[in-house]
Amino acid sequence: MELEDNEKKDSLKNFRSFGQQIVDTASVFYRRGWLFGTSGNLSAVINETPLQIAITGSGLNKGKIDLSGLIVIDVNGNVISGNKKVSSEADLHIAVIREMHAGSVFHTHSVWSTMLSKRYLKDGGILIRGYEMLKGLNNVGTHEHSEWIPIIENSQDMKTLSATVTSILRQHPEVHGFMLSGHGLYTWGKTPEEAERHVEVIEFLLEVYGRGNAGTDNIP
Amino acid sequence: MELEDNEKKDSLKNFRSFGQQIVDTASVFYRRGWLFGTSGNLSAVINETPLQIAITGSGLNKGKIDLSGLIVIDVNGNVISGNKKVSSEADLHIAVIREMHAGSVFHTHSVWSTMLSKRYLKDGGILIRGYEMLKGLNNVGTHEHSEWIPIIENSQDMKTLSATVTSILRQHPEVHGFMLSGHGLYTWGKTPEEAERHVEVIEFLLEVYGRGNAGTDNIP
Amino acid sequence: MELEDNEKKDSLKNFRSFGQQIVDTASVFYRRGWLFGTSGNLSAVINETPLQIAITGSGLNKGKIDLSGLIVIDVNGNVISGNKKVSSEADLHIAVIREMHAGSVFHTHSVWSTMLSKRYLKDGGILIRGYEMLKGLNNVGTHEHSEWIPIIENSQDMKTLSATVTSILRQHPEVHGFMLSGHGLYTWGKTPEEAERHVEVIEFLLEVYGRGNAGTDNIP
Amino acid sequence: MELEDNEKKDSLKNFRSFGQQIVDTASVFYRRGWLFGTSGNLSAVINETPLQIAITGSGLNKGKIDLSGLIVIDVNGNVISGNKKVSSEADLHIAVIREMHAGSVFHTHSVWSTMLSKRYLKDGGILIRGYEMLKGLNNVGTHEHSEWIPIIENSQDMKTLSATVTSILRQHPEVHGFMLSGHGLYTWGKTPEEAERHVEVIEFLLEVYGRGNAGTDNIP
Repeated sequence: MELEDNEKKDSLKNFRSFGQQIVDTASVFYRRGWLFGTSGNLSAVINETPLQIAITGSGLNKGKIDLSGLIVIDVNGNVISGNKKVSSEADLHIAVIREMHAGSVFHTHSVWSTMLSKRYLKDGGILIRGYEMLKGLNNVGTHEHSEWIPIIENSQDMKTLSATVTSILRQHPEVHGFMLSGHGLYTWGKTPEEAERHVEVIEFLLEVYGRGNAGTDNIP
Repeated sequence: MELEDNEKKDSLKNFRSFGQQIVDTASVFYRRGWLFGTSGNLSAVINETPLQIAITGSGLNKGKIDLSGLIVIDVNGNVISGNKKVSSEADLHIAVIREMHAGSVFHTHSVWSTMLSKRYLKDGGILIRGYEMLKGLNNVGTHEHSEWIPIIENSQDMKTLSATVTSILRQHPEVHGFMLSGHGLYTWGKTPEEAERHVEVIEFLLEVYGRGNAGTDNIP
Repeated sequence: MELEDNEKKDSLKNFRSFGQQIVDTASVFYRRGWLFGTSGNLSAVINETPLQIAITGSGLNKGKIDLSGLIVIDVNGNVISGNKKVSSEADLHIAVIREMHAGSVFHTHSVWSTMLSKRYLKDGGILIRGYEMLKGLNNVGTHEHSEWIPIIENSQDMKTLSATVTSILRQHPEVHGFMLSGHGLYTWGKTPEEAERHVEVIEFLLEVYGRGNAGTDNIP
Repeated sequence: MELEDNEKKDSLKNFRSFGQQIVDTASVFYRRGWLFGTSGNLSAVINETPLQIAITGSGLNKGKIDLSGLIVIDVNGNVISGNKKVSSEADLHIAVIREMHAGSVFHTHSVWSTMLSKRYLKDGGILIRGYEMLKGLNNVGTHEHSEWIPIIENSQDMKTLSATVTSILRQHPEVHGFMLSGHGLYTWGKTPEEAERHVEVIEFLLEVYGRGNAGTDNIP
């Protein structure tokens, strides 16, 4: 399915604008230690129908990329433009975008999300409640909110993992993020700006949770 | 009540000068992780009679604002100028300004204040004594000083919460700050500069307290 | 006792060169959280006979000063030049300079030195051994070195505290630093550069010590 | 053995390009606290036959050097060019380069590697498995990978220590790094870029390991 000329213009404009936000945010997140090595992936929808997604290329240091470090993929993960390798985790971004109608998906690798997601995998997730910072999540209006952050067992089989992610999101349509065990955080938003905010909010809450050893709260 | 022309000039001058201090400090505090997401609010009195307060707008990333991210409100929290939304927590700023005759109120969301304020809510506060850093608080001349930091249960009902804050401050007129449970720190000063210093001093002491697990000190 | 013209030139040259090193280092240390609020003092000898010391003024944010934030004092702590207030802790700088023949004294307030100096005051100090980083201390050639860091009880009586510091340094002429309980670290060097290195080395070792809960090592 | 003119050109080109990468990375690592004091050494092979290695000079603050802070040494650690002192640890760089056919060796001193390498020396190393970040290591394709990080007892006898390092690497040719107890991390790569990535990956995993107190995983 081809894009019309006007759609191509919009798509390109979105690539430049959302892409630059991704590049700038990646640089900040890298300096905070949330994207060390070549870890993490950030994406944004630049065209809805047909679906086109700008996503950071595989194997790059996300703190040092510019727009040429992004590629554009379609709904099946095929590369439409860009000369970088597509990450196998692009499938998870597509799953989140389709299931949650997200406009942007950010996947980060912080120390706290890595450590906690391994420790609490046996519980299937962690429950965070009673924090004002929760109000930074879309549609949350009170600190009395209980946020369930599912933890999914990590896997290199992206087909199966995508299906599991889709299934978990279908069971928990109210969540704002999930973790892969020993791997990190996925969160999203309508825009890159909202996805960035959700990363900051959830990473903050995970550090609070980890430092407080809030084991007794960990009951769904 | 209208401002005279001269008063308007002073008010505008104060807006520019105190406002810029707020913007600059917010940027530094954001990079330290004390204002993640869109959390926190910083304010300064720019006119005393009638009371006019410049305060950061609601729902903004405080690390990326300029002067246009501030609004000016009156003693009832009504917007006098600026095109951002007023935070519901503006009521708490007004309560502190009125009760403590503060010229500036800074509210930050650090990991340590969030974690400790939830853990020690049951004690009504934490007592910090024996630290030289206490001398960074206004009118404290010795490390032997005992600083009581009240913890107030968080609420979304700002009318009630303001009244509670006022009541606690009336009982403890000697305090330099308080925490809302699972929410963060409020502190203040005669100027934005003093409020900034108080944030650094109290945040430092909270981290020392948290790392030292100084449970046995926690008796008023 | 007056300075000759040539000596005045040297003294001024040293003020500018050592003073700038102090200002630059203070800015870096402040951003690392080692000089929050208005805490800490940094000094350097700019003339030996008669003794003239450039030292950061009292009550200033050490992360934001330039050369005008320094004052020059004599061996009795009297101000020779500069328009800032002299810190009462200048007496401790003078004591260290006289006793250890130091060219520069840096006093920092980190979370780790504050917390550990309070916890281990009862032991009179902490003993650090077995770390390669110890070789960053002047005249230490092996990680097998045992570094004793005395902890002295904090006091606001600077006359008594200076005498105690002098006495402890006379008993332990081999040390590279000491802590005041709940207060922070004093270290020094022949030059501001060496003092800066000693701060980094000791702060690093204190954090290692604190994180490792190396209680069993804490026997002199 | 002399270099031909063409080889000299290549060697100089590599010195400039790899040397600049070393200088830039050292500045970033220093700011992260991985090279405090004058600790750490970074090196890169700039000519293979005969072996020529650019390496940071001894006793320098690695966060503030430029190309003049590097020296070039031969396979025996003799200085070919540059006016800085050669570190005694250059022998370990040479041992790693020869045994692992590395193009670049980075040695860092972080708090976590220092603390963990002392705590777990008794076990001979630590085993890290189950983390996605492991895939940032060369030739690791799954988080199910088990990475053994040997810990070698620290020594000031570089001849013996080099021999021990060579022997350990021969026993464990699959490792990507090792630690010296109470001293820090050695890792390497085909290029300075890969060595930098390996530092970030291993330091990240050590912090996760340390925070998680993953004692039960510590069985080879």
